[in-house]
Amino acid sequence: MIKAAILGASGYTGAELVRLIDGHPNISIAALTADRKAGSSMADAFPHLAHIDLPTLIRLDQVDWSGVDLVFCALPHATTQQVLKALPERLKIVDLSADFRLEDPAEYERWYGGAHQALELQKEVVYGLPEMYREQIAKARLVANTGCYVATSLLPLLPLLEAKAIAPDPIIIDAASGVSGAGRGLKETSLFCEVSEGFAAYGVGGHRHVAEIDQECSKAAGVEVRPSFTPHLLPQNRGILATIYVHGDAAEIHSSLSARYQDEYFVHVKPLGVAPQTRHVRGSNFAHIGVVADRAPGRSIVISALDNLVRGASGQALQNANIMLGLEETTGLRQAPLFP
Amino acid sequence: MIKAAILGASGYTGAELVRLIDGHPNISIAALTADRKAGSSMADAFPHLAHIDLPTLIRLDQVDWSGVDLVFCALPHATTQQVLKALPERLKIVDLSADFRLEDPAEYERWYGGAHQALELQKEVVYGLPEMYREQIAKARLVANTGCYVATSLLPLLPLLEAKAIAPDPIIIDAASGVSGAGRGLKETSLFCEVSEGFAAYGVGGHRHVAEIDQECSKAAGVEVRPSFTPHLLPQNRGILATIYVHGDAAEIHSSLSARYQDEYFVHVKPLGVAPQTRHVRGSNFAHIGVVADRAPGRSIVISALDNLVRGASGQALQNANIMLGLEETTGLRQAPLFP
Amino acid sequence: MIKAAILGASGYTGAELVRLIDGHPNISIAALTADRKAGSSMADAFPHLAHIDLPTLIRLDQVDWSGVDLVFCALPHATTQQVLKALPERLKIVDLSADFRLEDPAEYERWYGGAHQALELQKEVVYGLPEMYREQIAKARLVANTGCYVATSLLPLLPLLEAKAIAPDPIIIDAASGVSGAGRGLKETSLFCEVSEGFAAYGVGGHRHVAEIDQECSKAAGVEVRPSFTPHLLPQNRGILATIYVHGDAAEIHSSLSARYQDEYFVHVKPLGVAPQTRHVRGSNFAHIGVVADRAPGRSIVISALDNLVRGASGQALQNANIMLGLEETTGLRQAPLFP
Amino acid sequence: MIKAAILGASGYTGAELVRLIDGHPNISIAALTADRKAGSSMADAFPHLAHIDLPTLIRLDQVDWSGVDLVFCALPHATTQQVLKALPERLKIVDLSADFRLEDPAEYERWYGGAHQALELQKEVVYGLPEMYREQIAKARLVANTGCYVATSLLPLLPLLEAKAIAPDPIIIDAASGVSGAGRGLKETSLFCEVSEGFAAYGVGGHRHVAEIDQECSKAAGVEVRPSFTPHLLPQNRGILATIYVHGDAAEIHSSLSARYQDEYFVHVKPLGVAPQTRHVRGSNFAHIGVVADRAPGRSIVISALDNLVRGASGQALQNANIMLGLEETTGLRQAPLFP
Repeated sequence: MIKAAILGASGYTGAELVRLIDGHPNISIAALTADRKAGSSMADAFPHLAHIDLPTLIRLDQVDWSGVDLVFCALPHATTQQVLKALPERLKIVDLSADFRLEDPAEYERWYGGAHQALELQKEVVYGLPEMYREQIAKARLVANTGCYVATSLLPLLPLLEAKAIAPDPIIIDAASGVSGAGRGLKETSLFCEVSEGFAAYGVGGHRHVAEIDQECSKAAGVEVRPSFTPHLLPQNRGILATIYVHGDAAEIHSSLSARYQDEYFVHVKPLGVAPQTRHVRGSNFAHIGVVADRAPGRSIVISALDNLVRGASGQALQNANIMLGLEETTGLRQAPLFP
Repeated sequence: MIKAAILGASGYTGAELVRLIDGHPNISIAALTADRKAGSSMADAFPHLAHIDLPTLIRLDQVDWSGVDLVFCALPHATTQQVLKALPERLKIVDLSADFRLEDPAEYERWYGGAHQALELQKEVVYGLPEMYREQIAKARLVANTGCYVATSLLPLLPLLEAKAIAPDPIIIDAASGVSGAGRGLKETSLFCEVSEGFAAYGVGGHRHVAEIDQECSKAAGVEVRPSFTPHLLPQNRGILATIYVHGDAAEIHSSLSARYQDEYFVHVKPLGVAPQTRHVRGSNFAHIGVVADRAPGRSIVISALDNLVRGASGQALQNANIMLGLEETTGLRQAPLFP
Repeated sequence: MIKAAILGASGYTGAELVRLIDGHPNISIAALTADRKAGSSMADAFPHLAHIDLPTLIRLDQVDWSGVDLVFCALPHATTQQVLKALPERLKIVDLSADFRLEDPAEYERWYGGAHQALELQKEVVYGLPEMYREQIAKARLVANTGCYVATSLLPLLPLLEAKAIAPDPIIIDAASGVSGAGRGLKETSLFCEVSEGFAAYGVGGHRHVAEIDQECSKAAGVEVRPSFTPHLLPQNRGILATIYVHGDAAEIHSSLSARYQDEYFVHVKPLGVAPQTRHVRGSNFAHIGVVADRAPGRSIVISALDNLVRGASGQALQNANIMLGLEETTGLRQAPLFP
Repeated sequence: MIKAAILGASGYTGAELVRLIDGHPNISIAALTADRKAGSSMADAFPHLAHIDLPTLIRLDQVDWSGVDLVFCALPHATTQQVLKALPERLKIVDLSADFRLEDPAEYERWYGGAHQALELQKEVVYGLPEMYREQIAKARLVANTGCYVATSLLPLLPLLEAKAIAPDPIIIDAASGVSGAGRGLKETSLFCEVSEGFAAYGVGGHRHVAEIDQECSKAAGVEVRPSFTPHLLPQNRGILATIYVHGDAAEIHSSLSARYQDEYFVHVKPLGVAPQTRHVRGSNFAHIGVVADRAPGRSIVISALDNLVRGASGQALQNANIMLGLEETTGLRQAPLFP
């Protein structure tokens, strides 16, 4: 059994990692950290996991690294880089924060407001979108798990830009996420009464996630790509949907995506003209993609849906870990979605 | 007191008309029709209105038109044109269906799948977007109330196209509506379990509402305008939000809209950079508009929010009626939104 | 115009007071306090009220009491008693906190964990359930507005206990509330993801609201009454429903309540056998009551529904203020419920 | 591999059976019936199952029973008895309808309004509450799966009545269910706008589920037991919570339940004083039970929560099938709950 530590286990992505690893035959949980809740049980923090035999929550400085093979890091941005650069080099790490996703330190500083503190470590990081970087991930020590909005956008966009099936400009990504994407922190904007029965955009005109989108799209296209990106907050727990407006022929886009993903277990391209729904991937590691011709000639609409906590975070992290460990990539991740 | 009949009172827009007219000092309800529920009380159909003294629901053919001055028609498409052409000519009518919104009979036939049956009547119709057609509405006999998605889109787009503050192409309208927009009919897609905790687009690539959008945008711009339009279904009762991607300068767009709407009671332009939320117009006749610069030079994002049952249907219908009757336009419509 | 100050205007009950007073012809808002948000506008705190011309939020110590006739106090428990005892004696006050609801200081101390700091003031307080204490409220200087769960329970229970139509024991009140009842404070249990798609009881076995229920039920029955009371949290914004199990004949209970409330504008007793729904009172000051015979002979189920922010808080406070001011009791409160 | 047929696969319980069997190592799906959707794929009816290789939906009369070992019957009441009595005798059957749950044909006729059509078959039925009837289920040919409200109620009540830890009267079961319990049929009361943002009781005073509760409670107590039972509809997809008011000592009740369930994988008794939440069992086969002392001496509140589609229907059906087939009872059912 591979022994895993989950750093930052008292948040939603931490709990989701526990849920998924509980069904994984080759990985066991050796340590769970949560600095503010250290000393309490995971069952106190997350009663839905009370039936699982788990280690008590401890502080990060209490972890006995000698009993750990694999680290899932679900700590906040900025903290993460400090923590990870201090870990023993032999550990394999999947980082769920944004700290190591941007290759260019200047871009990091621009969007996150401070100089990166682990530039050496950054150099060996592999970007954690498994369908795109599988071979590099297999050899990586540290994988920077792709963010939820970004994975939703890149799964359709990268193959299309590589294949030149769509123009690199304009690309408009209109996206919406369930509230769990904002985490378990106490924010007025995450209160039930501020979210339910309403819908709104936020971070309009330049959300920090565009840095990640730009980096990967530009590499795929071979030219600089700068999509428009507008996130919205949905009155639901889970699910991200991106409705992407592109220039390109719908039939060609559809056949390009279908060919690209025909052997991928987790990515399903729907028949041409059929739109995916977030509720049909809930709780699973699947991404559903649909392609529809716009009425404007030469324009198409590509829609992508996934569960932000699974395929957009913890499930994808486990998928990356499976690859890093040489395990079958879908191990522990074949659960069907939960509907309704 | 002006005596109003509401045709099709057992749907959500019918109930909303009753709610609003209940607070109107100059209009009383003389007749309520609902063919399938004829004989039962409005309190049976809508217990939230049980405290209001209302006429019993009757069949359309039971209405005594001699006691009616004003008609709100909330009947389904196609039925409406047959009914309205048979009404006494002296009646003032606000029609909430799509039957009379399209000036070009060929467009009607194309999108609604049958020849229009009241072409003579169509000729004298005024399009019911009050802020744009106030003078014509004041003299009209029959006003075709603007649809909910369309009002959300046109309130920002028409002044901008008229002022040439935005390019007529490309315009991308990414919109989302609460479920009440689908009415009270029994459809699997309107069931709680099929809507809650999920989000999806529908009618992608060519929803029939684009005909109305094209007609009005093209008139405003003086050239043919064909926006992309993608509606989505939200897990909430009320509210429509349109996130509109345009080519144009955000500051210029903002000042253009601010100037255009500074004296309009029901349309609020938020400070530059602030996005509106559907929850902040819930239950009211207000429309909130926000303008944000996109990071792509020369592109902007215009966001518009309203309550689909009030400003997108029954409230706007009452606003139109007030104008037709020579009453103060806001009469009975000044209720503040209900939040949370 | 009567000039009102709202103390604690940045919470949900404060905003609801503003919404309701905006439609009141005889009361204007002279001051709004919110210590932590002092200096900002009400529109910043509550964008749905942005169309109303309102004073800027100020600190409590900045209020010019000379320009104030009426105070609505929506401050937290314990703070309230300190604030209210220091106000000029000529002010009429409706207090929405629990600080002055309990007549017995020992009971206050038992449930709220500290000695009461304004015992002199407590002596002249009138309990703010208008249908029960109308005459005393008319002469009161300080009215302690009944709490939301309690109003839902007492509206049916007090007349039935007075009329001896039910036994004083056992009475089981199984109640559920929307999340707005917990206020706008930052608590993990109020986060969207912790509330939506789930249901649970809290404060089981002895919630502090029972003190208020006991006090009033015992006075009405003339003997000590100690109902069981279990509150639950609902995944919805507004609405309280109490399902109350009593010993008594359903027909007698129904006729007793019907007679008691036949002339009350805000309390509606449904036909025997019909259960009320919270959605049918949403946003209004109405309370709906239903009575159903249990299958067990001699037992009945009484169900009561109201909007916790209106009839359970701010609407009832305005109703009390109307009585205190000698105005028609329903002034500004006749809005129909908002459904769906 | 055991070959299973699912009769009535186009409803929510049918889909849930497919989801669970997909993760079961010893059972494969040989046939799926849905008379009205025959000829279409399961992926059309339930896009969340599109990744699973499944037989096409067929009519009941098209099933080749020679390739079937096990039948899950998710057909409507009344239809079921006609279908099941015609099946080959060698088949093992788990029936999810109410048709075979009542032992007394007079009780069936009283609550379901017609004479039972398969009285011979009824005689050999075993009641499908695994923790209570495990040994009989192991030998049964036809198991009548316990209903969702009933399982929620009986899991705590039966051991307590058997142990005489509570009085057989009064017992008040105040329960609430998510909307999926009403199925996928088109009913106005299941529409999103009629359910969301609201709460109400239904079937008050005598819901048909009490027949099943009476039967089992009376057998356990050895005397006739007639609890009061009030179901409510929650604005959420999944989850049932029963708040049960009993006469008995909380500590004794708690120790009795703890002892009874200490070796049961699927039933968790929480520490004394802790209330369970439906969100913490979502998507799983677990039932959570809590016990709290009421403030009234000698009275206690027992709260029980489960997922109505899993432990209240399809999961419990698979648990029964595992027992009938001699498999480990938890096979395919160990998935952790999905939260949030």
